[in-house]
Amino acid sequence: MKVERSPSMFFYPCPVVLVTSADEKSEPNIVTLAWVGVACSDPPTISIAIRPSRHSYGLIERSKEFVVNIPTVDILKQTEYCGRVSGRDHKKFAETGLTPEPASKVKAPLIKECPVNLECSLQQIVKLGSHGLFLGQIAAIHVEQEMLDPNGRIDYAKAQPFVYNQGEYWNLRKKMEV
Amino acid sequence: MKVERSPSMFFYPCPVVLVTSADEKSEPNIVTLAWVGVACSDPPTISIAIRPSRHSYGLIERSKEFVVNIPTVDILKQTEYCGRVSGRDHKKFAETGLTPEPASKVKAPLIKECPVNLECSLQQIVKLGSHGLFLGQIAAIHVEQEMLDPNGRIDYAKAQPFVYNQGEYWNLRKKMEV
Repeated sequence: MKVERSPSMFFYPCPVVLVTSADEKSEPNIVTLAWVGVACSDPPTISIAIRPSRHSYGLIERSKEFVVNIPTVDILKQTEYCGRVSGRDHKKFAETGLTPEPASKVKAPLIKECPVNLECSLQQIVKLGSHGLFLGQIAAIHVEQEMLDPNGRIDYAKAQPFVYNQGEYWNLRKKMEV
Repeated sequence: MKVERSPSMFFYPCPVVLVTSADEKSEPNIVTLAWVGVACSDPPTISIAIRPSRHSYGLIERSKEFVVNIPTVDILKQTEYCGRVSGRDHKKFAETGLTPEPASKVKAPLIKECPVNLECSLQQIVKLGSHGLFLGQIAAIHVEQEMLDPNGRIDYAKAQPFVYNQGEYWNLRKKMEV
């Protein structure tokens, strides 16, 4: 039986990404976000929702750049950690052992262990209440070639992404035939 | 080995939803979207990206309302169909056998076969290029009680959502321990 509830955020399944950012004054930071999605295909634009209290909010607002790094299940523990502690008090690259690599268009680093990295240039922040919705235009893409299928599409069986569900992480099983 | 590519939309994994809309002049419509995400928690706000050429774009722009219905794998075929044909030429409720149910705050119908329905009130359309990003504030939620776990969280093992990957659909396997 269905019941009606008062409004709250009750959306699923949510992707999980590691967003890196940097400015002149601070260590490069990593934040784990599940409130992320595609906003437009041309120009290719990604949306990420961040609370103003988060360290990454100011870093991205000032630098006007960020990188969306898509993790695999192999770095699930590091992903959970980067969502739990603040970059104000923690050097997350050093503490997790994740490896920063130089990006080509932005100053924020790529995360080497993520098979896909999307360098983004901040276009606007839509202020909506508890969160600002950052719209970033993709400026460059880095893809691990071994993760692609013969059609040039990411092979989920190799890239092993996962989704978020209110504190839980779930992995993917198999491609379904329609 | 990683290679750099020119910018394009290369984001995954994407959720899959059925968005319903209606106005006085037209049949209620269903469109399948994967470019959807959480934009804000308070007020709870969802973003959906739609091309202006799509029938649903005008329906939602005029009615200023829509419903996000989250499908299960049981209606995968109907989900694929609703993303492939246009509501200008097709009565998708009748053709798929999906069941419209009255919503409580909006005129667009809920889809009975989806265990979660999020009634949304359009707040703004951010025009980004090929797509408009529709920001909808959740006005009411309907949840199938049998799909909840003891903590009141959606149980993915029961609700069986799935994700999209450039033409493919993948289901979920299991909760992972961090």
